Amino acid sequence: MSQGDTDSSTPGAAAYRELLGELRQAALLRSSVALLGWDQETYMPRRGGALRAEQLAQLESLAHRQATQPKLAELFEAAESDAELTADPMVAANLREGRRRYERAVRLPEELVREFTETTSLASEAWRDARAQSDFSAFQPWLTKVVELTRRKAECHGASAPGEMYDALLDDYEPGADTASIDRVFGELRDWLVPFAAEIAASPGAPSDAPQRLRVPIERQKELNALVAERIGYDFASGRVDISAHPFCTFIGPGDTRITTRYTEERFADALSSTMHETGHALYDQGLPKDTRFGEPVADVASHAMHESQSRLWENQVGRSQQFWRWAMPEARRVLGDAVEGVTPEAMFGAVNRVEPSLIRVDSDEVTYHLHIMLRYDLERAMLAGDLAPADLPGAWNERMKRDLGLEVPDDARGCLQDVHWSHGYIGYFPTYTLGTLYSAQFWAAARRDLPDLEEGFARGEFAPLLEWLRERIHRQGSRFTPPELVERVTGAPLTPRPLMEYFEERLRPLYGI
Amino acid sequence: MSQGDTDSSTPGAAAYRELLGELRQAALLRSSVALLGWDQETYMPRRGGALRAEQLAQLESLAHRQATQPKLAELFEAAESDAELTADPMVAANLREGRRRYERAVRLPEELVREFTETTSLASEAWRDARAQSDFSAFQPWLTKVVELTRRKAECHGASAPGEMYDALLDDYEPGADTASIDRVFGELRDWLVPFAAEIAASPGAPSDAPQRLRVPIERQKELNALVAERIGYDFASGRVDISAHPFCTFIGPGDTRITTRYTEERFADALSSTMHETGHALYDQGLPKDTRFGEPVADVASHAMHESQSRLWENQVGRSQQFWRWAMPEARRVLGDAVEGVTPEAMFGAVNRVEPSLIRVDSDEVTYHLHIMLRYDLERAMLAGDLAPADLPGAWNERMKRDLGLEVPDDARGCLQDVHWSHGYIGYFPTYTLGTLYSAQFWAAARRDLPDLEEGFARGEFAPLLEWLRERIHRQGSRFTPPELVERVTGAPLTPRPLMEYFEERLRPLYGI
Repeated sequence: MSQGDTDSSTPGAAAYRELLGELRQAALLRSSVALLGWDQETYMPRRGGALRAEQLAQLESLAHRQATQPKLAELFEAAESDAELTADPMVAANLREGRRRYERAVRLPEELVREFTETTSLASEAWRDARAQSDFSAFQPWLTKVVELTRRKAECHGASAPGEMYDALLDDYEPGADTASIDRVFGELRDWLVPFAAEIAASPGAPSDAPQRLRVPIERQKELNALVAERIGYDFASGRVDISAHPFCTFIGPGDTRITTRYTEERFADALSSTMHETGHALYDQGLPKDTRFGEPVADVASHAMHESQSRLWENQVGRSQQFWRWAMPEARRVLGDAVEGVTPEAMFGAVNRVEPSLIRVDSDEVTYHLHIMLRYDLERAMLAGDLAPADLPGAWNERMKRDLGLEVPDDARGCLQDVHWSHGYIGYFPTYTLGTLYSAQFWAAARRDLPDLEEGFARGEFAPLLEWLRERIHRQGSRFTPPELVERVTGAPLTPRPLMEYFEERLRPLYGI
Repeated sequence: MSQGDTDSSTPGAAAYRELLGELRQAALLRSSVALLGWDQETYMPRRGGALRAEQLAQLESLAHRQATQPKLAELFEAAESDAELTADPMVAANLREGRRRYERAVRLPEELVREFTETTSLASEAWRDARAQSDFSAFQPWLTKVVELTRRKAECHGASAPGEMYDALLDDYEPGADTASIDRVFGELRDWLVPFAAEIAASPGAPSDAPQRLRVPIERQKELNALVAERIGYDFASGRVDISAHPFCTFIGPGDTRITTRYTEERFADALSSTMHETGHALYDQGLPKDTRFGEPVADVASHAMHESQSRLWENQVGRSQQFWRWAMPEARRVLGDAVEGVTPEAMFGAVNRVEPSLIRVDSDEVTYHLHIMLRYDLERAMLAGDLAPADLPGAWNERMKRDLGLEVPDDARGCLQDVHWSHGYIGYFPTYTLGTLYSAQFWAAARRDLPDLEEGFARGEFAPLLEWLRERIHRQGSRFTPPELVERVTGAPLTPRPLMEYFEERLRPLYGI
């Protein structure tokens, strides 16, 4: 049921209608924030950063004020107490999710929201320069400030001891998640991952990475990436692809979901992989329920991890499959020309599935990727709890990289300065990458059961059956269900790391001959 | 004196400080509006238009509410009645200009501002499609709506009869202007222009336009345009150049002034001319007073016509001069390569100064340009007064083009649909193009008196003396003076069309041998 269909003859229904109107205004303000943020990462001139921080702080404050008006509490109550109204499951979901967000938002004073936004906008500019010069000392004061402001947020959400801080924040990224369950899932995955990675490292049968050393002009790569994005379902009339230092996807609102990629002349498959990842995010946003209006709580995605499951699925399960490359390699030869002459689909399949520890998370392979995440999860948790001073981050990072991945970190640009997240104040975000990957593998297993010809279709360039499967079960559900409910509805089981392990086994054992 | 220096020990000074703080918040909201508008014209996906209209309407409403708070009336009064405070000329100017804007703003109900913004955002999308298909009927309902909303605005500003509508709006574009004085100045200019254009048309000595028919790759043109923009003083760390259907300049705020250009492979000099025009606008914005803070009324430009004087001066007095091409042509040969081989500075000077009536205003020559403006001025005034129905616009336009420029209009895309302005609700804006051109010629005459070596410097690529002259006298004054005061201070005389006529005579008589 959409807002327009609601019977407003009862006081509860009238309150509900008014409530959705107010939430829509907050969502509109956030859509302007999203555009300003997109511009900051893509086209904003260098000296525009100070003004941008003020613009963002102002609009976030206004959005916060709009979303925490005392009047809303009355509207929620009036709607919630109307049994006829809440009998509609969509209304019930809107009220459940709306109230969850409202309760979290009212705990934060507007002044903290304003300061957090302004600080992180400036911090992300500082981070960019610090990383470019590999100068951690230039970023350290900003990190300290961000950690301190994040602690104040956690306190607002009820954390009364350092050890409670992280849990208090997790709900912003993955509703219902807690460190206990993450520790359990991560522990189970890690116990399997480390020996599996060691087995691969010891195998003499590593595929060649020669196809990843070809030099391909960037203009040609752009063409190929656009072709693949469109083929897997990205609607260019409602989006666009630009270039940024860190690839990302931004949902501005209906009709406007933008992605970015970055290119180097070498490793054209990495740019393509990145584009497929961001396209996966965008397909979720472009597939959100059409029978709701922008700003209704259910019209939004279920969670960050659920969002990540969509990007991972297209990047990995699709984009690293043999069948995908059977279709994509002839297209690549047509578009990229001589540069990739003679490269076979099998060679590309091998090259994009090499497992090899690397310094940079976003360039890492599918297997060791999760060791990067676990490292960040542990370090950000320690910083928040006060067990790790921001000044000691580089040392802790480098030690852990040595222990977990066996790598020496040559400089902070390739170490603790590599990710944008902390500068943006996203502390508690990293675990959603691994959780999302686990969701993606579980969804993938379910999709293969439902669609027996699925992967053979990829070889013919047919991706619509998978997209439609995801649209129906996930995208069009918005946040009607909580993430645990959704994964159980779609796959028939709660979240477990088993499907990811099975997927790795099935793909990598034959490739490595182990 | 800046906000920070104000002695806040008196109630008047405290009120003044609070007032500037509130005005800054309104300016910040408008800077977000500016960015959203820039994005709509450059990068927004096609289906993003409906959301964008809502975003813009929301932010304009909020900015209007912020700028019309009843509290501000009290703050103005408290500050204005503090004689010690207002003895500072900068404070006095801030209060004068701030109050002028406040008085105009409070006359408009927020609902009208919201509706006007949403309608014109959608109308500009409709105009784009209508122009592409040369289908006036698709735009006509939007034009009707825009004219009607503009009339409601005029009524809010006190127009009680149809004939008073236009005057009531002019103050938004050129403070202090009225139709009586515009009629007088335009009449004087027209009486001189028509026989002068006829004399040129009858002359056998027209310069060749061959250099304008060369084909130059757009990537090379971009490089040349950036080189020229930077050389005349554009700060790329505080701006950028993009492509849009209609070139424009947007001041987002300090550190962020963006321009756009459009290119065709032919007529590279037109793109360069357009870039110099928009750079002229941007130089004004980038040169606004540094001893004031963004949001203070005096930190803003003096008027639209004053803005246009800066763009015109760089486009015409500089960019069409012999001396400019003596410097620019060797640069062009270096950057553009074979395409312009053998083209001399003299040939370019002739080509860019050809006078020849044309259908499209923005492609027209300097002389007949003003006949385009007078046509629009008369027609928009007639529409507003109800003497011309929007449905009858194409007929009236075509008839007038025939009479004034001797041209048959082949379709509405090259007729009444060519300009973006009316779709944006800019009715009353067009006269500022001619007024700005008159200012530019008057400033030019004064600058030549002050700087005897001025034009010879252009031939050496030296533009800093002119920029510094403009910065000191105009840019850094912000809106400290009204446009009539400013022109008198800078040139020693009130606005007159004589300097423009003399400039045309001096440049075009020798070229045409008349």
